[in-house]
Amino acid sequence: MSNPTPNGAQSLIRTLVDSGVEVCFANPGTSEMHFVAALDDVPGMRAVLGLFEGVATGAADGYARIAGKPACTLLHLGPGLGNGLANLHNARRAHTPMVNIVGDHATYHKRYDAPLESDIDAVAGTVSSWVHRSMTPDAVPTDGARAVAEAMRAPGGVATLILPADVCWLDSTPPAEPITPQPAAIVPDEVIVAAARALQSDGDSVLFLGGRTLDERGQRAAVRIAAATGAKVFGEVFPRIQRRGAGLPVVERLTYLAEFAQMQIGDATSMVLVDAPAPASFFAYPGKPSSLVPEGCAVSTLATGTDDPVAALEALADALGAPEDVALAEASRTEPPTGELTVETVAASLGALMPENAIIVDEAQTSGIFNQGATGGAPAHDWLTLTGGAIGIGVPLSLGAAIAAPDRPVINLQADGSAMYTLQGWWSQAREGANVTTVIYNNSSYAILRMELARVGAEEAGPKALSMLDLHGPDLDFVDLAQGMGVTAERAETAEQFTEALERALAHDGPNVIEAIVPPLGM
Amino acid sequence: MSNPTPNGAQSLIRTLVDSGVEVCFANPGTSEMHFVAALDDVPGMRAVLGLFEGVATGAADGYARIAGKPACTLLHLGPGLGNGLANLHNARRAHTPMVNIVGDHATYHKRYDAPLESDIDAVAGTVSSWVHRSMTPDAVPTDGARAVAEAMRAPGGVATLILPADVCWLDSTPPAEPITPQPAAIVPDEVIVAAARALQSDGDSVLFLGGRTLDERGQRAAVRIAAATGAKVFGEVFPRIQRRGAGLPVVERLTYLAEFAQMQIGDATSMVLVDAPAPASFFAYPGKPSSLVPEGCAVSTLATGTDDPVAALEALADALGAPEDVALAEASRTEPPTGELTVETVAASLGALMPENAIIVDEAQTSGIFNQGATGGAPAHDWLTLTGGAIGIGVPLSLGAAIAAPDRPVINLQADGSAMYTLQGWWSQAREGANVTTVIYNNSSYAILRMELARVGAEEAGPKALSMLDLHGPDLDFVDLAQGMGVTAERAETAEQFTEALERALAHDGPNVIEAIVPPLGM
Repeated sequence: MSNPTPNGAQSLIRTLVDSGVEVCFANPGTSEMHFVAALDDVPGMRAVLGLFEGVATGAADGYARIAGKPACTLLHLGPGLGNGLANLHNARRAHTPMVNIVGDHATYHKRYDAPLESDIDAVAGTVSSWVHRSMTPDAVPTDGARAVAEAMRAPGGVATLILPADVCWLDSTPPAEPITPQPAAIVPDEVIVAAARALQSDGDSVLFLGGRTLDERGQRAAVRIAAATGAKVFGEVFPRIQRRGAGLPVVERLTYLAEFAQMQIGDATSMVLVDAPAPASFFAYPGKPSSLVPEGCAVSTLATGTDDPVAALEALADALGAPEDVALAEASRTEPPTGELTVETVAASLGALMPENAIIVDEAQTSGIFNQGATGGAPAHDWLTLTGGAIGIGVPLSLGAAIAAPDRPVINLQADGSAMYTLQGWWSQAREGANVTTVIYNNSSYAILRMELARVGAEEAGPKALSMLDLHGPDLDFVDLAQGMGVTAERAETAEQFTEALERALAHDGPNVIEAIVPPLGM
Repeated sequence: MSNPTPNGAQSLIRTLVDSGVEVCFANPGTSEMHFVAALDDVPGMRAVLGLFEGVATGAADGYARIAGKPACTLLHLGPGLGNGLANLHNARRAHTPMVNIVGDHATYHKRYDAPLESDIDAVAGTVSSWVHRSMTPDAVPTDGARAVAEAMRAPGGVATLILPADVCWLDSTPPAEPITPQPAAIVPDEVIVAAARALQSDGDSVLFLGGRTLDERGQRAAVRIAAATGAKVFGEVFPRIQRRGAGLPVVERLTYLAEFAQMQIGDATSMVLVDAPAPASFFAYPGKPSSLVPEGCAVSTLATGTDDPVAALEALADALGAPEDVALAEASRTEPPTGELTVETVAASLGALMPENAIIVDEAQTSGIFNQGATGGAPAHDWLTLTGGAIGIGVPLSLGAAIAAPDRPVINLQADGSAMYTLQGWWSQAREGANVTTVIYNNSSYAILRMELARVGAEEAGPKALSMLDLHGPDLDFVDLAQGMGVTAERAETAEQFTEALERALAHDGPNVIEAIVPPLGM
């Protein structure tokens, strides 16, 4: 340190680095200037600038899903937190460990109710598993260590540390020692036995996986359990991350459309939840049930978020005497498609070309329905989804994933309407040289809302209603938009063009955008 | 109505229209589909789609500042509210009347804690003067009328109505009658007399104007008062709207930099506040005072937000026997500049060309410092500012202002870094044919933060810190970005090019972007 007595900001950053936090996704303002200045005083913290806070929070989510440990954010007071809130909501639903640092006015300045004053604590409370405000510079280092431990406490969460400006600029105490997070609980034997009984009971049974269970170990154990009991296994609709592809166990996810999810679940009379809530419809629809649990089906829980759900699955598989060998996905590739560019031919190109150990960031919405099917036999990969339903996650999540794993290719499958929420992340991808290939499905519509308009029983839509779902007039040009932020981009209008563009993009380091002109699904 | 028994959405929209709400700035999702469908069933409500909620909330603010009555928004659950929060914060600080409609899950669906479930009420409470949740379809019409009245209650505010999906789709009661807002209070005579004494006391006195006082009537009365008492008159740093230019009374605003504001206020021993809080520094700085009220200065209040502050100023002027005739700004024009393009030559072009009755939306930050000086004698115009300090207001505020006043030219003076927060508003400008000329000051930096870094005493910044304030690498190309959203755009690199571009843009209906390549101030 350049300063023998560290200020609050210096001691905090040093504490964060010592606790394993190596990246700060930042969009700072005046009240965070001492934190920014301290980045040069403390080695070990990489700072990544976002041009909008939703980029910073979404990137911190993507980083942690891949790195398995938190990054920190740096946001500017209540409005900065507000701009980052939608992706913090998604992170909350993903149980992503994150240290969310929100700068605030100096402690003594708050009573003047200056223009940027607002109730940060109230807003932060809606997305955080822990909220704390550092009130003295001496408390900051310990508060920082605590924030990391709270972020890492099972199942993981957003730990928000509110940081008044004077607390940063005043002399502080030395950095704090890392605090060991509270370990996940081990599921007791009697719960394992009860789950075994539930899955072996008469009638169909379902093992429902969420949270942290969709890694290789968790899915392997689940498939062993299925082999021993005949239970159906499903993953939640929007998992934080699922490991899949050739050589891996196969776990199907429940579909977004409740009608289809009900068909998947069928007439199950017993359902065992593992790090997941009981399945429910994403939205309510007139005259349709909200719960996806069949009537009369007994629901029990093997492991909750504060347990170690993968260890519980393995213990259950062993208790059942389940076979060690399970069926794994065989390697297979789709054929490179020809002719019209559609969401189906895009999927086939993807299946044909997906590189080894790719990270797929899926915000494709309706355009993505063929992608899982086309890539089940592709080389092993991780699949990240929109956990909280707050659109605008894909571009920043890809940025964060690429920073966590610079040697892995990241492919962002991205709906056009959703992309427009946090498109500023492309600039950060360019600045950081993030190895992200973005496929924009340009169908010039909120296609999912056209479908939803009919599903909610409001199908007799007039011209004003339809105009709210239509992204024509003017057409968005994503090649211009990408180039305006320094990202290489090209447009594809046939399947052949798309396949060639995807080959080029995957062979090229750094960010690339391919704008795929496709008709909306069903049009 | 197409339906003899209106559903909740139809009856709500009809009530809003009957109460004078004519425009809905919307970014809907599934839970708002019945509201969207009802837009075609009820005549009189214009729907303007934003591709991001911050566009919708900022546009509703701009609309109301010009129209003098509320628009409504339509946002999608908690994350949609979050995305709109920064500009709702600005609207709160502007005391903008707005009916902020946030869709939510059906009442019976909330207990399933579906992915988009979150605490909407807590977030809304931080920006709203009134928050209400409609729990039955029969209550919706009255709730809607109440929301308009609460939005219009002096001094104006964000009235948030949370609207569960089933409350919209179920059969409702007929539309509700408009509710008259509670009128602003009349300031009692004794307060007028006390203010007169305070301004006539020994020593220097200051009359400090905020809120709704900076229209023509309020400023005229304030200048009369100054003539009668010798008081200095200042407007707040960031007013919601100020009427100014040739033929209008001249009221100087306090400057953003506290050091200069202190010089403006000088050694005043008496200060009278009119619809404004006592002046305070925007941020705290080490070793500098937060309050801008000189030590020993007596502060009193002529009118608060719930009073009629313009009537109070006029009553005070009359009580003082102040002259009716006051000095007005003379018409004058700057010369069209030549040579290098700088923030100063941009200002001169603006002063030379500003059309009659323009609406200036000022989010120019450091690049704007010459603009007020260059336009004091330009034709009469309104000047709108960033009231709450939450950047990303300019593009949407311009959209809303243009929709409120389609026959007036809107000029958005826009800093580059701030523009990137809500750039999506350009697409809505193009779609609506909004007559907005945007001047982007592209100085490739968060120039204001470079200044602030030094002001907070953190001037020994290293390369990481400086990289957080630097928008190079890659350079943003705002011509590409504008064209990608269907907006005509050109780049200017000399003063002559800029003047010609501004002439072209002002002569051309619909949105136009001019990217002015300028050095950061002081570089």
